[in-house]
Amino acid sequence: EVTLSGDARMGIVNDGDTTEFSSRARVAFTLSGETDGGLSFGASFRADNAVGANGNTDTTDGSVFISGAFGKLSMGNVAGAAEAAVGDLSGVGYTGLGDFSDTVYLTGDGAEGEPIVQYAYTAGDLSVYASASDGAQVSNYALGLGYKMGDYNFGIGYESTDDGLFGDDATHVVASAGGTFGAVSAKVVYGQADLGSGFDLTQYGLSATYSADALAVTGYYKVVDTDFIAGETTAVGLGASYDLGGGASVKGGVVNVDNEFLGDNTAYDLGVTFSF
Amino acid sequence: EVTLSGDARMGIVNDGDTTEFSSRARVAFTLSGETDGGLSFGASFRADNAVGANGNTDTTDGSVFISGAFGKLSMGNVAGAAEAAVGDLSGVGYTGLGDFSDTVYLTGDGAEGEPIVQYAYTAGDLSVYASASDGAQVSNYALGLGYKMGDYNFGIGYESTDDGLFGDDATHVVASAGGTFGAVSAKVVYGQADLGSGFDLTQYGLSATYSADALAVTGYYKVVDTDFIAGETTAVGLGASYDLGGGASVKGGVVNVDNEFLGDNTAYDLGVTFSF
Amino acid sequence: EVTLSGDARMGIVNDGDTTEFSSRARVAFTLSGETDGGLSFGASFRADNAVGANGNTDTTDGSVFISGAFGKLSMGNVAGAAEAAVGDLSGVGYTGLGDFSDTVYLTGDGAEGEPIVQYAYTAGDLSVYASASDGAQVSNYALGLGYKMGDYNFGIGYESTDDGLFGDDATHVVASAGGTFGAVSAKVVYGQADLGSGFDLTQYGLSATYSADALAVTGYYKVVDTDFIAGETTAVGLGASYDLGGGASVKGGVVNVDNEFLGDNTAYDLGVTFSF
Repeated sequence: EVTLSGDARMGIVNDGDTTEFSSRARVAFTLSGETDGGLSFGASFRADNAVGANGNTDTTDGSVFISGAFGKLSMGNVAGAAEAAVGDLSGVGYTGLGDFSDTVYLTGDGAEGEPIVQYAYTAGDLSVYASASDGAQVSNYALGLGYKMGDYNFGIGYESTDDGLFGDDATHVVASAGGTFGAVSAKVVYGQADLGSGFDLTQYGLSATYSADALAVTGYYKVVDTDFIAGETTAVGLGASYDLGGGASVKGGVVNVDNEFLGDNTAYDLGVTFSF
Repeated sequence: EVTLSGDARMGIVNDGDTTEFSSRARVAFTLSGETDGGLSFGASFRADNAVGANGNTDTTDGSVFISGAFGKLSMGNVAGAAEAAVGDLSGVGYTGLGDFSDTVYLTGDGAEGEPIVQYAYTAGDLSVYASASDGAQVSNYALGLGYKMGDYNFGIGYESTDDGLFGDDATHVVASAGGTFGAVSAKVVYGQADLGSGFDLTQYGLSATYSADALAVTGYYKVVDTDFIAGETTAVGLGASYDLGGGASVKGGVVNVDNEFLGDNTAYDLGVTFSF
Repeated sequence: EVTLSGDARMGIVNDGDTTEFSSRARVAFTLSGETDGGLSFGASFRADNAVGANGNTDTTDGSVFISGAFGKLSMGNVAGAAEAAVGDLSGVGYTGLGDFSDTVYLTGDGAEGEPIVQYAYTAGDLSVYASASDGAQVSNYALGLGYKMGDYNFGIGYESTDDGLFGDDATHVVASAGGTFGAVSAKVVYGQADLGSGFDLTQYGLSATYSADALAVTGYYKVVDTDFIAGETTAVGLGASYDLGGGASVKGGVVNVDNEFLGDNTAYDLGVTFSF
């Protein structure tokens, strides 16, 4: 069976300099089936990624999976195991405003320009993840562990790639802790990477969302500190979302990004988002 | 909800020189929803435009809307307000044969290469339209008014852009009148544009369609007269359509285009069109 | 009506040198309708081919058809009449491993880079096919005949093009015979082409599939012998497929390709395939 879903949004974005209209509309295909023996299988990709999802050894979009009692095995443009376990902070704005709340990862999510494999297994509150590339373009792998304890959740991941700075090996250890405290849900992320060739990257941040009926207010603080030319970047975001029901929300946000070499910039957006 | 529709056609086209097979098949996605408060929202784009519809500040295809008692607000590749009010003459042929029956507009329909906004409000027989770009690439706006009176309808529009000839400002006033007279429906369009840098464009034309059961015969006459290098172009078209039912029609047409500098050329086509 | 279907696959491929992950996911649109007079019409194309299916005189993907008592007339990227009658040998592997079991044709299947027309008519056990390009880019045509006799089937085709080697005319006569013998189905193909400019191509091969419940084992042997620089190529393939039900199969194959100038190479793959 092939089913359709979609999302769309429209509004205005100010990148710190110019105010522009910004809109998009997308459709996703979800393919699902089941073998006689009870294994689930499927695939998914967006209509605008249809060419990249038909890429064979060069697939850049979409993913295919088979799952059963053994866990879930996915191939394609899938998240690396570290990202699957740790994830990102909560972002703000109807467009994401540069997605500075996202965690930096060395592997997965299309970084390889070719399909990788991700394996996931969940037993009760514990989830384990492993991922690897095939080594043809780049040789990498990652491991991840997720644990839920009541209203709290924890994640830890490790990544290794031979495609670090100047072609050197690179590794990354990253962890998160999150929880729900009444009307507030919060998450912290900390990561330490050896980028290769003697350079390091440290990232850490916190996001929190306060919810009251249809309203949600989110704030985040994120630092990515490197000792190479990219320097240290601090991003602070604040946003709000109001649920109109039926899949529609009004969302707006403001993000200040301060780089030690490039200086600081404040962007904001306001718009409506729809899911179908 | 995401729903699918489609269209297809096949036949032969002679461009005045060579006779060729011409076929196409397309699918459109229509996304629709409703908020708890009763606002309608949605989006639409074709599968072949999926990449352009995911363009954010550079969206070139598809559109997103929200509507309610306040009217309808659309963003993306939408028609400018003048086009929304005035429209085009009726075309001929299964391919349109160059679409010389279309009215020339300065704004909208993707001319900006980025999303614009169109607002539409209808109260009884009166419709008002306003549209504008965000000014980041090009700064333009348009206004339109449509009025129905029994079997007759009238439209008038005004457009302004800072992206005229040689970067000068340009404006356009355009109007239409149409009506149904028994088995015949007809429309006239007249437009006068200051293209900037001292150049003008005048366009006028008439189309009429005679319908008898499944048969429809359409003719049009359209002149676009400029005082710059494009000169004056006169297009005369005649076509017929026979409805086979179920969404299928046989269509054919012939169009003669005469440009004062390039001379004249006659193209024709014959084919079947399908809607799904 | 527009309906969706899909396919996906994932696994590993070794091209004789490197082992790589290979995955893909695809969705196909099928458009169908019926006229009041009972003619069927429709179109089909894949989401990743949506742009090519909207090509008019340059359509490279997808096809449109109308059918009735007179037969079926298709336009677009359709098979030439020789291919429609004769087809290919059975391939192996979850990716096809280079599709060396495919028959070489001079016309159809997108070879023209523009739409061609195919006409098919079936009366009982006999099917006749004719196809032609419009002559704008390349001038070609083909004829085909298929006949079924109980468990046996036969096909013969003739192709002619003015786009042979070095722009010379080329022709091709190709035939097949197939049958089912208990648990085994087999097919032979033989073709003889005058490629133009004094060069010839001879192709012949055999494929056989043995089926037992969910298991199918396929082998093929195919030779393409030319007297120009491509030389003689012999491909031998062996593969197996196990049906998991619900549209899922495990498939694997190995193919040895031996070219008289380039030497020989062995590729293999193993993966799962899904249909939705």
